[in-house]
Amino acid sequence: MNNDLFETGLTNRRAVLGTAYVDASLAAATDFSRDLQEYVTQYCWGDVWDRPGLSFRDRSLVNLGMLTALNRGHEFKVHVRGALNNGVTRDEIKEVLMQTAFYCGGPAALESFRLAQEVFTAMDAEATAGAAGA
Amino acid sequence: MNNDLFETGLTNRRAVLGTAYVDASLAAATDFSRDLQEYVTQYCWGDVWDRPGLSFRDRSLVNLGMLTALNRGHEFKVHVRGALNNGVTRDEIKEVLMQTAFYCGGPAALESFRLAQEVFTAMDAEATAGAAGA
Amino acid sequence: MNNDLFETGLTNRRAVLGTAYVDASLAAATDFSRDLQEYVTQYCWGDVWDRPGLSFRDRSLVNLGMLTALNRGHEFKVHVRGALNNGVTRDEIKEVLMQTAFYCGGPAALESFRLAQEVFTAMDAEATAGAAGA
Amino acid sequence: MNNDLFETGLTNRRAVLGTAYVDASLAAATDFSRDLQEYVTQYCWGDVWDRPGLSFRDRSLVNLGMLTALNRGHEFKVHVRGALNNGVTRDEIKEVLMQTAFYCGGPAALESFRLAQEVFTAMDAEATAGAAGA
Amino acid sequence: MNNDLFETGLTNRRAVLGTAYVDASLAAATDFSRDLQEYVTQYCWGDVWDRPGLSFRDRSLVNLGMLTALNRGHEFKVHVRGALNNGVTRDEIKEVLMQTAFYCGGPAALESFRLAQEVFTAMDAEATAGAAGA
Amino acid sequence: MNNDLFETGLTNRRAVLGTAYVDASLAAATDFSRDLQEYVTQYCWGDVWDRPGLSFRDRSLVNLGMLTALNRGHEFKVHVRGALNNGVTRDEIKEVLMQTAFYCGGPAALESFRLAQEVFTAMDAEATAGAAGA
Repeated sequence: MNNDLFETGLTNRRAVLGTAYVDASLAAATDFSRDLQEYVTQYCWGDVWDRPGLSFRDRSLVNLGMLTALNRGHEFKVHVRGALNNGVTRDEIKEVLMQTAFYCGGPAALESFRLAQEVFTAMDAEATAGAAGA
Repeated sequence: MNNDLFETGLTNRRAVLGTAYVDASLAAATDFSRDLQEYVTQYCWGDVWDRPGLSFRDRSLVNLGMLTALNRGHEFKVHVRGALNNGVTRDEIKEVLMQTAFYCGGPAALESFRLAQEVFTAMDAEATAGAAGA
Repeated sequence: MNNDLFETGLTNRRAVLGTAYVDASLAAATDFSRDLQEYVTQYCWGDVWDRPGLSFRDRSLVNLGMLTALNRGHEFKVHVRGALNNGVTRDEIKEVLMQTAFYCGGPAALESFRLAQEVFTAMDAEATAGAAGA
Repeated sequence: MNNDLFETGLTNRRAVLGTAYVDASLAAATDFSRDLQEYVTQYCWGDVWDRPGLSFRDRSLVNLGMLTALNRGHEFKVHVRGALNNGVTRDEIKEVLMQTAFYCGGPAALESFRLAQEVFTAMDAEATAGAAGA
Repeated sequence: MNNDLFETGLTNRRAVLGTAYVDASLAAATDFSRDLQEYVTQYCWGDVWDRPGLSFRDRSLVNLGMLTALNRGHEFKVHVRGALNNGVTRDEIKEVLMQTAFYCGGPAALESFRLAQEVFTAMDAEATAGAAGA
Repeated sequence: MNNDLFETGLTNRRAVLGTAYVDASLAAATDFSRDLQEYVTQYCWGDVWDRPGLSFRDRSLVNLGMLTALNRGHEFKVHVRGALNNGVTRDEIKEVLMQTAFYCGGPAALESFRLAQEVFTAMDAEATAGAAGA
């Protein structure tokens, strides 16, 4: 493993997906899944996301479109949270998904709207729980 | 057909893809393909692209990612030109495609790099021919 | 929004998917998802499904094949009910899915058989509950 | 190989795709590709297409939708000819493709319209050549 | 139905997926799904898997890659068990999935790692329960 | 760039795809495409292909299946040559593709048979030309 790439990746991944989420992912890694965690952290987050030519916000927009097209709901939900962390608003997420309706087809857009709504609902519940706990 | 939607769409489509390209597409429409041209112009360009919540530049970034994921090379090339018209630079196109390498996989990225390079080469030849003809 | 297109779409959508289902979808729409509901109702149901060149039954057959190929299970189940409403029999649904086994591959067909069976089981339970309640 | 299944398949395949096309495919088979030709002829044409529960015309409609969704242009073109042989009109092919525009997305529909148009143009040229030769 | 092909297929299918699993699948078949069970058993297991040119182990490796690419999670899990029965080790399954990370993209690999881990966890629990029951 | 990873990758890539092919790819790299060449060489060939847990032959079998499923014809052809270099025979390539016929569907298999045949024909012509030139 390349430690520099891994450390850079860890910083970027935490910035986008949140420290709690990333640390939980790494802590949950088993002998079976650890190599993939390292692959993803180094090459996706330590290389691609570290490239200066496009902002985190722009990369999030692209990801929402790609993950809808690829039909990968789990990662799509992860990147809805990432997009919000990167300054994409809920209304802008709506705009990307309206665009998927034409290019990827209606069923793809309907699915991503449902999944994004699930993320928003969960986040709103977390915020309420957090406020109640304060 | 909804004429307002079609006219709005025509304006947006020409702004992104160029008047020459769009007028050629419409002129080439046959009894077989005319309805689809009207569908695309109204709903994609007259509705989705006319929504104010996301800039043309941002929509182009999303399209480059989606069309790579969807494996639709012909439309991808059309939208490489569209992206450049919308202010996306060649370096930013490269960045989107580097991102597709991780999310859509290497073969998808290699194909889109090839197709984008074909567009750039054709555009450079057109520019040279245009300069020579001046 | 184009009201004529929306009203036409609403009529077609209710005819295929049932008034209860469609009204629940629209009532559940939020500020986030309302625009997509309007997009789908207008352009899919108010335009494509309103075209006279193909019967509702034929369009349902095509949808069962496309949604299996696209791997969009949620919409597939919606359109199994739609197909039955449009006069496609359970045996004809089986025939379409046998055909997906060759063209889309075995795993796609196995998934659609499971999903269709889930719909049939739910409908049979609803019918029993309805009969018991009468 | 199961000879009954193969003979039944050959009859169905020729009925849909034309004797000339099928015989050329089989004649072109090499040691490398012969087994696949036999697989396709037996299981697709000798089994699926031989099932009585759905007409050839209906199966052609489903195929046009599936092959567009699957992004398999070569087989799509083969089945445009097959659809016409099975009594699907050019206008009905248009209708299926208008439906793919919503469900599979615009780029998929645009590609299938182009490919279908290529088939029609080739067939019209063949008809003209045939008439001239008469 | 071709009884020879079906019997051969049944033998191969049981050898790979386990007698208990296969017999449960066949017993659960309804009038709706029986034809597909016969199609799969004859043509996939009685023909393709019966071909001598590639070992069961090699075919399992190919399946893990294909099913990840095809995004068919249910069948992927079935074939994780099949691969182990065919002598593929958990470490070799990891290797195939590390390879999907590059070719199919990160989200596809992450999903297959999750699904494979679910299978391993279930199998370990079954083994513990079996040992406790002994 | 990580030079160790790149050099390791270059060695593996040349071993599989041939020195002439790889050196031509790198020499053809432009400012636009160079970063992707480095990404592919480092992470795919310097990491994934360098992992000892699976032989080159086994990785080639998996690639033929994945690339058929992913509908990426250009890379598929590259990896047909790679598979032969890694000791996979033409008959074994046929076996993998017969297996794709069931899992990925007939149209996917037909396309890969055509592409593989094109590679074989080109290689046979190269061999004849080489022999004639000797």
